[in-house]
Amino acid sequence: MTSTSIHETEIVSASDVPLVRITREFDAPPEKVFRAHTDPELFAQWNGPRRHETRIDHFDCRTGGSYRYVMSSGGNEFGFRGCFHEVRPSELIVQTFTFEGLPDGVALERLIFDDLGNGRTRLTATSLVDSFEDRDAFVASGMEEGVREGYERLDELLAR
Amino acid sequence: MTSTSIHETEIVSASDVPLVRITREFDAPPEKVFRAHTDPELFAQWNGPRRHETRIDHFDCRTGGSYRYVMSSGGNEFGFRGCFHEVRPSELIVQTFTFEGLPDGVALERLIFDDLGNGRTRLTATSLVDSFEDRDAFVASGMEEGVREGYERLDELLAR
Repeated sequence: MTSTSIHETEIVSASDVPLVRITREFDAPPEKVFRAHTDPELFAQWNGPRRHETRIDHFDCRTGGSYRYVMSSGGNEFGFRGCFHEVRPSELIVQTFTFEGLPDGVALERLIFDDLGNGRTRLTATSLVDSFEDRDAFVASGMEEGVREGYERLDELLAR
Repeated sequence: MTSTSIHETEIVSASDVPLVRITREFDAPPEKVFRAHTDPELFAQWNGPRRHETRIDHFDCRTGGSYRYVMSSGGNEFGFRGCFHEVRPSELIVQTFTFEGLPDGVALERLIFDDLGNGRTRLTATSLVDSFEDRDAFVASGMEEGVREGYERLDELLAR
């Protein structure tokens, strides 16, 4: 019998501000979870749902850098881009995020890597936009499936 | 008798989201108002209140670029930094903003340059943060004086 530890991905819409908060634990130390977010080759291996492929256009994950990647599925391509406001090794990434299909929508994202000890990490990822309507449309867009499946792929990558 | 056209700077705190909206008209076309925001030498000439001096550390105002500048007054220095998410010539700047004295506070700023015709521009600058408490503290910090006086200096620069 195989015992698999499945961590739950918690996705919560804040009631007072137009923000989504995603919380997820990983069985790997902060350094490793952080590196899977900053190394473009690793990021492309786990980002998004399995049926999508991530191709990096550029990905300069340092304070003042920027990124663009393209997700493709069944002949459709979706571009995403932003800049890195701050990258604090193994602790914090603050970045902007735009889906190029909605070029005027910009989210401010904050990823916090908390060391839980014993080689475990809690990742808290918040996404802030300027209207509740846009936040709710983002949550309703099916992002949940992509986030959960992406983190399952990240579990697999971290276990290698 | 000298007749001076004084434009009012409107600063409004949104009621539903933690955002401040600043609106100001200028007697210059969008290209010129935009350039005063993107050219570091010009920016340093009008940014902030008169008693402060702005020194540019770096200022690469293009999509994916970043900036840092230092304001000094009476021996005190205040650093500000961020990245440029998008720079659309004469139309739009989307950037992040952090006062280094509060390094975990990050605002998402959007500057929209509207062409009013007859060589006039309306600038709408919004600043979004993730809590009403931080937004209200920002408004109460005396930013208003700096914004109003900065735009008066910008009027003078544009009139040259």
